[in-house]
Amino acid sequence: MLHIDQYTAAAEEAVGQLEIPAAPAGLYDPVRYTLQAGGKRIRPVLTLAVADAISPDGRHLAVNQAAAIELFHNFTLLHDDVMDRADMRRGRPTVHRQWNEATAILSGDAMLTLAGTAMMKGCDEAKLRPVMRLFNRTAMEIYEGQQHDMDFESRTDVTVGEYMEMIRLKTSVLLGCACALGAVMTGADETVTDAFYGYGESLGLAFQLRDDYLDTYGDPATFGKQIGGDIACDKKTWLLINALAEDTTGTVAAEISNPSPREEKIRRVREIYDTLGLPQRCLGLIRRYADNATARLATARLQPEALRFFTDLAMLTVDRTR
Amino acid sequence: MLHIDQYTAAAEEAVGQLEIPAAPAGLYDPVRYTLQAGGKRIRPVLTLAVADAISPDGRHLAVNQAAAIELFHNFTLLHDDVMDRADMRRGRPTVHRQWNEATAILSGDAMLTLAGTAMMKGCDEAKLRPVMRLFNRTAMEIYEGQQHDMDFESRTDVTVGEYMEMIRLKTSVLLGCACALGAVMTGADETVTDAFYGYGESLGLAFQLRDDYLDTYGDPATFGKQIGGDIACDKKTWLLINALAEDTTGTVAAEISNPSPREEKIRRVREIYDTLGLPQRCLGLIRRYADNATARLATARLQPEALRFFTDLAMLTVDRTR
Repeated sequence: MLHIDQYTAAAEEAVGQLEIPAAPAGLYDPVRYTLQAGGKRIRPVLTLAVADAISPDGRHLAVNQAAAIELFHNFTLLHDDVMDRADMRRGRPTVHRQWNEATAILSGDAMLTLAGTAMMKGCDEAKLRPVMRLFNRTAMEIYEGQQHDMDFESRTDVTVGEYMEMIRLKTSVLLGCACALGAVMTGADETVTDAFYGYGESLGLAFQLRDDYLDTYGDPATFGKQIGGDIACDKKTWLLINALAEDTTGTVAAEISNPSPREEKIRRVREIYDTLGLPQRCLGLIRRYADNATARLATARLQPEALRFFTDLAMLTVDRTR
Repeated sequence: MLHIDQYTAAAEEAVGQLEIPAAPAGLYDPVRYTLQAGGKRIRPVLTLAVADAISPDGRHLAVNQAAAIELFHNFTLLHDDVMDRADMRRGRPTVHRQWNEATAILSGDAMLTLAGTAMMKGCDEAKLRPVMRLFNRTAMEIYEGQQHDMDFESRTDVTVGEYMEMIRLKTSVLLGCACALGAVMTGADETVTDAFYGYGESLGLAFQLRDDYLDTYGDPATFGKQIGGDIACDKKTWLLINALAEDTTGTVAAEISNPSPREEKIRRVREIYDTLGLPQRCLGLIRRYADNATARLATARLQPEALRFFTDLAMLTVDRTR
């Protein structure tokens, strides 16, 4: 096993080796722009690390699938930004702002098809169908998760259970898929593949809840986004859903129907979160999902060094500040 | 071989058998709505007929690919309508008008992934890679064609050669792909597959030029759309591109930069088309591409009945009024 930073570098290299045609520039420049924005590359890191944990030649066997999963992830961000009318992503204008909406739609479509093509690369005949089936099933689940997320916007009665299922679909299954791809590409059996899928899925839930937590309780110096954005736009996060259910003062509901000025609103809602003990409960839940992720690896028959790697990675997710 | 109307019915049945989940309704209702709009189903008809021309059990072997190609085609229409901000399609509001833009984008994404899934169905291990490679390559070409089409909007110096390449990518390769899928799924060799691809590709050029012709010279009673729409919005069609190059009176250029009222503009531009002999030349070109399509089948080793079917189909395209 390499160090986590080395996997990040390997993931970056895998993404850099994707073959994106030059012309027509209107179609492919936005693809390059999107990929070059960087990001944590957590999904291809998982694919490469899982492959390495199973086979000495692992990360070379799974390099195309690692790149493909990151390409797919960036496609979902590109189209989500159009749907959400988001202006900025990773400190730069989104594609539909930098170019236009038609470009963002079409370039996203191209990224999805390119991801499918990259996914097939390096697969022998026996792996082609399981890999493509896993990829297509995961893609459908992610669209369903995004649909639920959009449906939640117009509802105030979303339950915690519905929310957890939404983030499982929208975020977690892709981390599960990224892990399972590393397993399938190195010829792992179903038990090991399922164990890694479960690790990624549980890690994804911890990851998304940490995102929710940081948006309200993060340090502005490290988080990189303005704190309180979710509260300001009434985003149905784990924190808000619980607060809506438990806040007997009616403050939270009132701040949605009849909001105070932005900073005042954030302060008032956060105060309710604090009173209800939500930040501590959220951190506890994140920890539980991370522990559960590691527990799923019991059946993965890992070397101690590999088990330590994935345990450390789960703890990094629990503690991350950005 | 069946009769063309029977293939249309079989194509309709294949599309009807596609498995579109019920929930979440916001994601899948627009998929059903789009597929139920009908259309000529020419692409799946080609897949089924080619398969039948090669194997007695042909249309059953290729039924999933026929449905998949129609699903893919409808995905491109759905996203194109968002990009073009089109309000109506086949006499009904487009998805982004009936629902909203986010729905149209996400449901389109789902259709693309569902098409990929349907495309794999019924493929044995030997066919999976050639089928998916053909499908993915065709999809990329279609995006490139759409990009060229959008790029042409802001140009007045588009050449006939560029235009023909654009419609080859945007329209013809999908008909070529539809034909080739019927061949691959029935185990045809490369020569036969290439012959059918060439037939579909050339037929597609005839098909699109006939579309251009009908938009200006069609019979309003049968065409189903308002005549002159392309002229009204300065669409770079074969007719307009040739007119811009040959019109020494400057009328056409003037109608683009400084247009008369709609009906007057259509009348004036069509008059120039007539003076230049463009409708006759366009019809001659359509006929040539249709003949070329049939000629491509010389190497397909077809039974006389099958050859007659595809020759008749090409002639139907030449003569179609809607």
